[in-house]
Amino acid sequence: MTFANVGTLGTQPGQLDAVVAILTRPNPALAEAGCLLYEVGTSQDQPDTVFVTELWTSAAAHQQSLQLASVREAIAEAMPLLTGEMSGFQYDVVDSPLRD
Amino acid sequence: MTFANVGTLGTQPGQLDAVVAILTRPNPALAEAGCLLYEVGTSQDQPDTVFVTELWTSAAAHQQSLQLASVREAIAEAMPLLTGEMSGFQYDVVDSPLRD
Repeated sequence: MTFANVGTLGTQPGQLDAVVAILTRPNPALAEAGCLLYEVGTSQDQPDTVFVTELWTSAAAHQQSLQLASVREAIAEAMPLLTGEMSGFQYDVVDSPLRD
Repeated sequence: MTFANVGTLGTQPGQLDAVVAILTRPNPALAEAGCLLYEVGTSQDQPDTVFVTELWTSAAAHQQSLQLASVREAIAEAMPLLTGEMSGFQYDVVDSPLRD
């Protein structure tokens, strides 16, 4: 079942672009691990917040991806640039009005 | 710029499936209006919450879609089944590690 992981990450002042750059660095290993969608964005209303929306083939695929070397390296690189403030939610996709 | 609208809707007890059914009813007008992704889901951890993740060609496209007859009808149909509790966030997509 497709699994959604959606969230926000607080960034240290002035570090928004640096965190976005880390998270959007091309990484084919993600798709190989079952990542279907991984969108990173920002909002003028929240200048120190990075937004992430992910879809995975399963919750297990998402969980296992956190063990990928490339993912662990990205997290380690981004961690000092983050405030630790995080929000979001995870859920199982049921369906879409875009699909018959 | 791709626009993301992500959120949760509280449902009245026992109305989860009914709300999911309304939101996932096939609606070609959404794609025509610029909807790129519209995923609806649930979580065992939150049995009275529907989760929605949407991507649109722009914030304006999303805003205008709320005027579509089909969307207004779905909202009117779902409203009595909702508690009014809502959360979520909106943002502009910058990029993805799945894209080079």
